Amino acid sequence: MLIQLHTNITPVEKAAIISKAGELKYKTTEVVTQAGHYLVGTGKAEFDVRIIGNLPGIKDIHIVSDDYRLVSRKWKVNPTVIDFGDGLQVKEGEFTIMAGPCSIENEDQIEKTINHLVSQNVRFMRGGVFKPRSSPYSFRGLGIEGLKLFYEMCRAQGIKIVTEVMQVSQIAEMEPYTDVFQVGARNTQNFNLLDELGKVDKPVLLKRGISGTIDELLYSAEYIFSGGNEKLMLCERGIRTYETASRNTLDLNAIPILKEKTHLPVIVDPSHGIGIREYVEPMALAAIMAGADGIIYETHEKPEEAASDGAQTLSFSESERLIRKMRKTFELRKELA
Amino acid sequence: MLIQLHTNITPVEKAAIISKAGELKYKTTEVVTQAGHYLVGTGKAEFDVRIIGNLPGIKDIHIVSDDYRLVSRKWKVNPTVIDFGDGLQVKEGEFTIMAGPCSIENEDQIEKTINHLVSQNVRFMRGGVFKPRSSPYSFRGLGIEGLKLFYEMCRAQGIKIVTEVMQVSQIAEMEPYTDVFQVGARNTQNFNLLDELGKVDKPVLLKRGISGTIDELLYSAEYIFSGGNEKLMLCERGIRTYETASRNTLDLNAIPILKEKTHLPVIVDPSHGIGIREYVEPMALAAIMAGADGIIYETHEKPEEAASDGAQTLSFSESERLIRKMRKTFELRKELA
Amino acid sequence: MLIQLHTNITPVEKAAIISKAGELKYKTTEVVTQAGHYLVGTGKAEFDVRIIGNLPGIKDIHIVSDDYRLVSRKWKVNPTVIDFGDGLQVKEGEFTIMAGPCSIENEDQIEKTINHLVSQNVRFMRGGVFKPRSSPYSFRGLGIEGLKLFYEMCRAQGIKIVTEVMQVSQIAEMEPYTDVFQVGARNTQNFNLLDELGKVDKPVLLKRGISGTIDELLYSAEYIFSGGNEKLMLCERGIRTYETASRNTLDLNAIPILKEKTHLPVIVDPSHGIGIREYVEPMALAAIMAGADGIIYETHEKPEEAASDGAQTLSFSESERLIRKMRKTFELRKELA
Amino acid sequence: MLIQLHTNITPVEKAAIISKAGELKYKTTEVVTQAGHYLVGTGKAEFDVRIIGNLPGIKDIHIVSDDYRLVSRKWKVNPTVIDFGDGLQVKEGEFTIMAGPCSIENEDQIEKTINHLVSQNVRFMRGGVFKPRSSPYSFRGLGIEGLKLFYEMCRAQGIKIVTEVMQVSQIAEMEPYTDVFQVGARNTQNFNLLDELGKVDKPVLLKRGISGTIDELLYSAEYIFSGGNEKLMLCERGIRTYETASRNTLDLNAIPILKEKTHLPVIVDPSHGIGIREYVEPMALAAIMAGADGIIYETHEKPEEAASDGAQTLSFSESERLIRKMRKTFELRKELA
Repeated sequence: MLIQLHTNITPVEKAAIISKAGELKYKTTEVVTQAGHYLVGTGKAEFDVRIIGNLPGIKDIHIVSDDYRLVSRKWKVNPTVIDFGDGLQVKEGEFTIMAGPCSIENEDQIEKTINHLVSQNVRFMRGGVFKPRSSPYSFRGLGIEGLKLFYEMCRAQGIKIVTEVMQVSQIAEMEPYTDVFQVGARNTQNFNLLDELGKVDKPVLLKRGISGTIDELLYSAEYIFSGGNEKLMLCERGIRTYETASRNTLDLNAIPILKEKTHLPVIVDPSHGIGIREYVEPMALAAIMAGADGIIYETHEKPEEAASDGAQTLSFSESERLIRKMRKTFELRKELA
Repeated sequence: MLIQLHTNITPVEKAAIISKAGELKYKTTEVVTQAGHYLVGTGKAEFDVRIIGNLPGIKDIHIVSDDYRLVSRKWKVNPTVIDFGDGLQVKEGEFTIMAGPCSIENEDQIEKTINHLVSQNVRFMRGGVFKPRSSPYSFRGLGIEGLKLFYEMCRAQGIKIVTEVMQVSQIAEMEPYTDVFQVGARNTQNFNLLDELGKVDKPVLLKRGISGTIDELLYSAEYIFSGGNEKLMLCERGIRTYETASRNTLDLNAIPILKEKTHLPVIVDPSHGIGIREYVEPMALAAIMAGADGIIYETHEKPEEAASDGAQTLSFSESERLIRKMRKTFELRKELA
Repeated sequence: MLIQLHTNITPVEKAAIISKAGELKYKTTEVVTQAGHYLVGTGKAEFDVRIIGNLPGIKDIHIVSDDYRLVSRKWKVNPTVIDFGDGLQVKEGEFTIMAGPCSIENEDQIEKTINHLVSQNVRFMRGGVFKPRSSPYSFRGLGIEGLKLFYEMCRAQGIKIVTEVMQVSQIAEMEPYTDVFQVGARNTQNFNLLDELGKVDKPVLLKRGISGTIDELLYSAEYIFSGGNEKLMLCERGIRTYETASRNTLDLNAIPILKEKTHLPVIVDPSHGIGIREYVEPMALAAIMAGADGIIYETHEKPEEAASDGAQTLSFSESERLIRKMRKTFELRKELA
Repeated sequence: MLIQLHTNITPVEKAAIISKAGELKYKTTEVVTQAGHYLVGTGKAEFDVRIIGNLPGIKDIHIVSDDYRLVSRKWKVNPTVIDFGDGLQVKEGEFTIMAGPCSIENEDQIEKTINHLVSQNVRFMRGGVFKPRSSPYSFRGLGIEGLKLFYEMCRAQGIKIVTEVMQVSQIAEMEPYTDVFQVGARNTQNFNLLDELGKVDKPVLLKRGISGTIDELLYSAEYIFSGGNEKLMLCERGIRTYETASRNTLDLNAIPILKEKTHLPVIVDPSHGIGIREYVEPMALAAIMAGADGIIYETHEKPEEAASDGAQTLSFSESERLIRKMRKTFELRKELA
């Protein structure tokens, strides 16, 4: 059960709803987000929705059969729109491109990447300053000072930045310098991090876990949404299988399945999804035809010199070609719809 | 090492080549196919190819670093063309559609499917008469009599048939009534079956194993080719993973990887690859953008009444829409190439 | 529904039972094995078993909720005993050891292995003469002549042989020289092979598929049993996962689960299960404590010279030590039961 | 390269070593733990160890070919001993039992569990107060107040507690009330958490990731060790595969592999490893024969009323029986060694 409340609901009205839900053996969790005010009811009994729906203070009530509720498309048929101002939106029906290096390295690298993106009319730049690395002896990123530089340079050019947050304590220091918080595949079930991102008024790009199921991705999104943040994007980036010919197995099946289960936009990361530079392009185009709302990929002026992930990173000329092809492919998808 | 021999090579010349290869510690396997005559050399030593290449009777010699050799693109840069006569070819650069029911059920079903295919200018009909089923108590297909009926009805309309062969003893009885022998995912490593299909002068559609690697698929193709049959098509049909939201995980990464590793055409089966009727279309279109040379899928006049696989089978009107969209998608891919 | 029939049932009595089952919407399959006579009923309706159970000609009737029926422990509580004569039995409560090389190579190898086994009081020797190999250019075994030699030498010493059958056509030629037909992991769902093995009056050791589920293993066993052969042993030999530190992932969870689901004996193959010689011993002992009825493993006089699988093959002295430890471990398990 | 330093090394001596390593193109990371002082050198060049080994201030120098170094057995042949005082040690050669509920629920539950453990001479009690749950609406544990109660009650009875830490900010508040910090399977690659646990002078039980490789587990251990904490135990708890008959696939192959690769003790969790109450016992005994140094499992006075994981939790009488059998199994393993 999902109850949308009126903004001006009174405490007495709310208490009456909670009490009536309790009579029906439903436990309620109150959720206040940037955009709405909800009561999420968990319980099993079947009942006539009008018993509750007619109470004062209620905007709408929905029966949601999924265990995740707020992110389910069963109550919110209209897709989520994430608005960045200046006419920039991530949403179903638009095609979003996010590109940039795996790691932010220095001023020169940022500048050249920005110039490349601006020339291609791409509005989001990705780049990590806190890098999760399997080995403690690997390069771990430039840290918060790198982020400040990254942000200032992008802001000057109207570029929004997408960057990974790895732990709760980083959220506050990163927030002034971040447009989109990315949650990486190793943190998809870092529930404390998800809880805290629920309190932030900035969009979150949530990646699927390294061997996460589609349902687990939706549950993790539910954590952030129920924490108060509706500005969510999901990201398919390949899963772990027995196949070793590619870095991961990009699960494009997940795209139409997610698009039916949730109202959130779905982005695909073909760079991590296949892990081989030459094949990023066909997988990006495939993802678009499968229904992706956007593509995030890695590009670098000199991929072979990149501090990390060079083997799956496109040069700027490859990136240009990809952007042109992706836009044509998205046009075809709209035409065929 | 792969040596292409002249057709008119003499036994003495051949013996000289084998002997010289032996001196270099290479074991040779002679392969005679419909199209060529080869010596496949297995060994490890590095050597100057001219030592052998200049011997009489040799057309060409190639060093192939892959463990599979005859199916490798490292010696045969030009893609394999499978010619069915009447201008019908399966090959890179053309787009092939194969459609039909999971199981052949009766004359009426065959007729209606043929009419549907002819109206859409589709030239291949799929349909099984020998069905591999997990449980011995399930419907196992109409058998050889069903195949005869299927074949006669298709031949009358210029439709080629694609049908599964499950064991060696079926090959001889099926051959007069079959245009393409399909090897199913449970038989990809049924090496005796592969050996015998090498002796047949009919094309084979080899499906990837249920949890087969890309390399295992190529090794299995090497069995058929080295048995004498070059008319091979590979088929990606989804692999087994931990994800339960779809029947299998369609591994579209395999498409660009296979297209680089082998000269054989690559077909994709989105019906088994996702297993959910509503999502067959986006996965088919995705597969085309990933580089597939063809799509094989399930269609039935009344999917809900199909003897098997109804949940992933398209109705004829869904099939029509899919065909139209696939052709437009393939046009775009050619345009972008 | 599973109906055990009296041996002397009349055709009229049988027809009456089939007709009554049909009235209840149950389709019946008649199964005659070496040991019994059954009607397997597939249907969904609930009914009072006495409606059928009281008909003449019926020994017993059971409701079996599993989709596999004849191999289920829900009707046959007593474990299956496979009797080889001379007091040699494979069954729950006894501990069976099967050992020998991956491939039969020559007379000397067979003789030395037999001597080793006889000295250790081991009664089963494993060894392949038809080898399934990923690559067509690998050694494929000595074939039927090797089998004859293998069999004659073992028979002279009272050793039973376990050897892999790969295709239907081999069954007849192998039968006179085989004590246990082994079905390999690539053939677990080769349903034609299973059907034919159902007609044979020799025990079958059925290996779990490379990425087969426990239920699929039981369904495959159901094929053989319903074909007429009750002399079945199951074998866990490791499954395919993402982990590359071992050849396969030995799934010992499967042991207690299989022991509860089926009345058939369960053998474990730690050689393929881990694939690393040094670790075969701990995995064998672990399998015994998990409840295995027997262990099959690879041993060779000189593992480093074995024609195949040397990296996972024990020397005779390692084998001796393992046998001693396995027997002590099995004693403890019985003591703790 | 791993260099063990003398405790009284002077800054000048240390600088000389770092400088000499730099000449050999080795980057050094200084590590100071509770037990030792190290320089970890990462580089590729081969060199004569005496070039560095003879410098003053060096206790020993080792070439370690693994990418993880401090946790490798290639430099530290003697197994790690974790000393809890009172003669209580976790180490190779001893058998450690850790038991208790999934979640700490209330005073009565703690008391009854302690009484059970004391009566069985078990010295470690497990129990979570911060619970990672897929759904945000599930019970998330009693929190820090629950931990204080848990700790005080255990201390009074000489029981050490093992409890999960989910995020960096919990470490400081938990530390006074925790004997062993458990890192759960969803946090194995939460690198910030690992870094911070490196600064703590309390033992850590690090679980393998949900689909983590053995090498990734060792890298994660390297994070904690290189952060300064040598008191590490590893825990195999099952991995995610396609098999659905069990909750996870307990990978006992990992035990002998880990015991060879690392000097750290290895604990096995059969409760999560199979997820089915009836089968916890055989899997625990199997794990011991595979070489486990200890077993951690779930027990509750009334499993069917447990707040979480009831389906895999043993009753106290089942727990008693298991303890008796585990000890006898461990005795046999020592006897056979």
